[in-house]
Amino acid sequence: VAVPDLVEAAKNADILIFVVPHQFIPNFCNQLLGKIKPNAIAISLIKSFDKAEGGGIDLISHIITRHLKIPCAVLMGANLANEVAEGNFCETTIGCTDKKYGKVLRDLFQANHFRVVVVDDADAVEVCGALKNIVACGAGFVDGLKLGDNTKAAVIRLGLMEMIRFVDVFYPGSKLSTFFESCGVADLITTCYGGRNRRVSEAFVTSGKTIEELEKEMLNGQKLQGPPTAEEVNYMLKNKKLEDKFPLFTAIHKICTNQLKPKDLID
Amino acid sequence: VAVPDLVEAAKNADILIFVVPHQFIPNFCNQLLGKIKPNAIAISLIKSFDKAEGGGIDLISHIITRHLKIPCAVLMGANLANEVAEGNFCETTIGCTDKKYGKVLRDLFQANHFRVVVVDDADAVEVCGALKNIVACGAGFVDGLKLGDNTKAAVIRLGLMEMIRFVDVFYPGSKLSTFFESCGVADLITTCYGGRNRRVSEAFVTSGKTIEELEKEMLNGQKLQGPPTAEEVNYMLKNKKLEDKFPLFTAIHKICTNQLKPKDLID
Repeated sequence: VAVPDLVEAAKNADILIFVVPHQFIPNFCNQLLGKIKPNAIAISLIKSFDKAEGGGIDLISHIITRHLKIPCAVLMGANLANEVAEGNFCETTIGCTDKKYGKVLRDLFQANHFRVVVVDDADAVEVCGALKNIVACGAGFVDGLKLGDNTKAAVIRLGLMEMIRFVDVFYPGSKLSTFFESCGVADLITTCYGGRNRRVSEAFVTSGKTIEELEKEMLNGQKLQGPPTAEEVNYMLKNKKLEDKFPLFTAIHKICTNQLKPKDLID
Repeated sequence: VAVPDLVEAAKNADILIFVVPHQFIPNFCNQLLGKIKPNAIAISLIKSFDKAEGGGIDLISHIITRHLKIPCAVLMGANLANEVAEGNFCETTIGCTDKKYGKVLRDLFQANHFRVVVVDDADAVEVCGALKNIVACGAGFVDGLKLGDNTKAAVIRLGLMEMIRFVDVFYPGSKLSTFFESCGVADLITTCYGGRNRRVSEAFVTSGKTIEELEKEMLNGQKLQGPPTAEEVNYMLKNKKLEDKFPLFTAIHKICTNQLKPKDLID
């Protein structure tokens, strides 16, 4: 049953599942505060960041926890929605620091064709889900330039290395093995071959149109996640003077904002 | 200059580059023994195994070193040949246990659009180059079954995990970071999207023909590397009673040899 009223829908819930554009989160949390079960838990399926004051980024799960004062896990993985809907086999990763909640959430989401692995490295899982969309833009540029599978694999690999470095710098203590889960290498591959960030970025190169124009034409005006995520990351990197440690993320941001030509991605 | 006589071509060489079907290696080594510079070094670009007596596999670089009594490095990476020939950017990995030779070999192969990284984890690099072709058969089956990008990414990820486990069991002491080099995740992606093992395996599902028939039709009778590599690996795993620790490799071998249906890959 779909309940259109947010507070009504949430008031008796043991588990709150967040799947909305991240801009709505602070407002939703303000509406919900004090009106949910005190022992409720949350899980976020949102694949983007928010900007934090002072030049950093904020994880959506952290915002939810801070506002609602309940734990918030995350779910990320190679889960292109239309293919999940078709019932084809896929995997996903839940990042949850508390083992007890991890088990509950796994049992909630796991199904015959939807295999869940829970890891406690929640921040790394969430960061993977957002950063992979930046890399997918790079993969789309390579496709638009018709540079072939070797170059595309090189960009995906370099992107994965920057994802690992990003987590290492800003969320230290994460495990390398998390990047081998569905949220890491698998979601990155899926997004770089099948996702819409890739598709629109390819058209960006071949059509010469702006990303805004392509969003209107190709996505009915919905927004791509890669370009704003690249901008948020760049805001953080610039502030910390780390742009040159992340040359791929930086180049992709500059290409999205027309400060660089797509063909300059590889240099 | 192409010199057709093997001994003549090799006699003054400081570096011997091996790029031939691996069946020729023992014979070539026998011809060359005693007729090369004693301080020559070798590098193998061959992406397959040989069977060892007693139920194991033999690495080609080990065979070369054993026969010729010279060190042998390996070169593996996301390097589909036609795309390298077009001069598009790509990366490669040289595995070389001796730092001194590693530098010489890097300078020999590195070019503007062909970026070389040297690691000392030579066995892991070589094993990646061979095993990825097994996984590519699995990716091809998924394509033939039209299961989409999520399932394909799951198979690639599970394949990568089995590659890591295989190296861990049979070549212990390797580094996880080696799998993030071009020889690991990047070559795996390229091969699972652009390689001929994938292409023929897709046709295997959609046409109902045998792999031998498809090799004749699609490859002018040349042999695919994935199916025999899967067989060699299975020979080893069966002997060590480890088949069930490598369910994907085992299923792919059984599908190639008609002991399982392609649709049973995911179970």
